Amino acid sequence: MMSKALERRAKLRQALIDASERAIAAKGLAGLKTRDLARQIGCANGAVYNLVEDMDELILRVGSRTLRRLDAALEIAETTGTSQVKPGEMLVRIALAYCDFAAANLELWRALFEHRMAPDKPVPEWSVADQMELFRHIYTPLAALLPDRSPAELGVTARSLFSAVHGMVALGLEQKLVAVPIAALRSEIRTIVTAMVNGLGATARQTSTIT
Amino acid sequence: MMSKALERRAKLRQALIDASERAIAAKGLAGLKTRDLARQIGCANGAVYNLVEDMDELILRVGSRTLRRLDAALEIAETTGTSQVKPGEMLVRIALAYCDFAAANLELWRALFEHRMAPDKPVPEWSVADQMELFRHIYTPLAALLPDRSPAELGVTARSLFSAVHGMVALGLEQKLVAVPIAALRSEIRTIVTAMVNGLGATARQTSTIT
Repeated sequence: MMSKALERRAKLRQALIDASERAIAAKGLAGLKTRDLARQIGCANGAVYNLVEDMDELILRVGSRTLRRLDAALEIAETTGTSQVKPGEMLVRIALAYCDFAAANLELWRALFEHRMAPDKPVPEWSVADQMELFRHIYTPLAALLPDRSPAELGVTARSLFSAVHGMVALGLEQKLVAVPIAALRSEIRTIVTAMVNGLGATARQTSTIT
Repeated sequence: MMSKALERRAKLRQALIDASERAIAAKGLAGLKTRDLARQIGCANGAVYNLVEDMDELILRVGSRTLRRLDAALEIAETTGTSQVKPGEMLVRIALAYCDFAAANLELWRALFEHRMAPDKPVPEWSVADQMELFRHIYTPLAALLPDRSPAELGVTARSLFSAVHGMVALGLEQKLVAVPIAALRSEIRTIVTAMVNGLGATARQTSTIT
C-alpha cells in the first residue's frame, strides 16, 4: 500500500503535469514558468523539483500525453469508414489525420519538436519509446505497399515519409509566407503523399521486374 | 554625400549585423543578447535600437544574408557539372544542395525557421520578398516537368515540395530519434524527391491523356 506521503506526492505530480499541459497549450513552451506552476498546484517553487527531475522531464511527460492522444487519433483514422483500404490510401489517411491533430493541438504539437534537451543530455529511453511506437502507423501500410523491402529499409522510408509530411504540416500551419487555409493544406498533402506513394511503388515494381 | 554622422551610423549598423550573425552561428537565436552585441561594437546598450528598430529586424537582417548565401549555393548546384539535366534530376540536385547548405550553416539556417515575430506584427515586405525570391529554384524545373499546370498550381506544388524536403532535412539534422549520417540523409532525399517527381509526372500524364 502507498504511504500517505507517497500518495500525496503522486497526486501533486499529476497536478503538476496537468498544469504544465494547460500552460503549454495556452502559450507554448515559452509559457512554462516554475513559479506559475508551483502557485497553481499549491507548493513552494523549489518543491516542483521534488516532483520531477527538471523542466526537461516535465516537458517530455507532457509530450508523452500528446503522443498518446496522437496515437489514438491515428487509430481512429485507420479504422473509420471503409474497411478495405489500399496501403497507399491508408498512408494518405494517416497524413491527413496527422495534419488535423496538429491543427487542433497546435502548441502542444509544436512543443514536441521545439523542445531541445540540454547539450549532452540524452532523451530518456521511455520518451524515445513513446516516439518510436507511433511509427507503426506508417510502417504497416508501407510494408504492404513495398513487400520486397527489408524491415530496415522500410524503417528508413517510414521516417522519410513522416519527415516530409511533417514539413508540409509544420510550414503550412506556421503560415510564415502565405496563409494556407487548412482545406488547401489537406488537399496538397493528399496530392504529394499520393505522388510519393505512386513513385515509390513504381520504383519497387521496376526493381522487382529487373531482378 | 553622406554626412559623417550618417556614415558612422551605417558602419555601426553593419558591425551590429555582423556581430549578430556570428552570435547566431555560434549559439543560435538564444545566443543573441543586446548587451553582448553592444559591447562588441562599442556602443551603449540603448544605442543598439538607434541602429535597428528592434530584435526582430536584426534577426531578419541576418536572415536575409543567410537566404542570399543559400540562393548562391543553389545557383552553383544548378550550373555545376553536366549542362543538360532533366527537370526531375534538377529538383533532386536542388534538394541535396539545400540539405548541404543546412548542414554547413546549421544555426543560421535554424534561425530562419525558429524566429517568430511578436504576435500581430507582420513580417516586413522586404523580408517576405527575400524568401519568395528563392522559390524560383524549384518553380523553374517544376514548370518544365509539369508544362500543363497553371502558374498558381505550380506555385502551390513548389511550396509543398519545398516543405517536404525541408521536413526531411530538419528532422534528419535534428537527429532527435535516430542519428542519420549525412550520406544516408542525402540518399533518402534523393529517393523521396525522385518518387515525388515520378508520381507527380505520372499523374500529369494520366490527366492529360484523359482530357
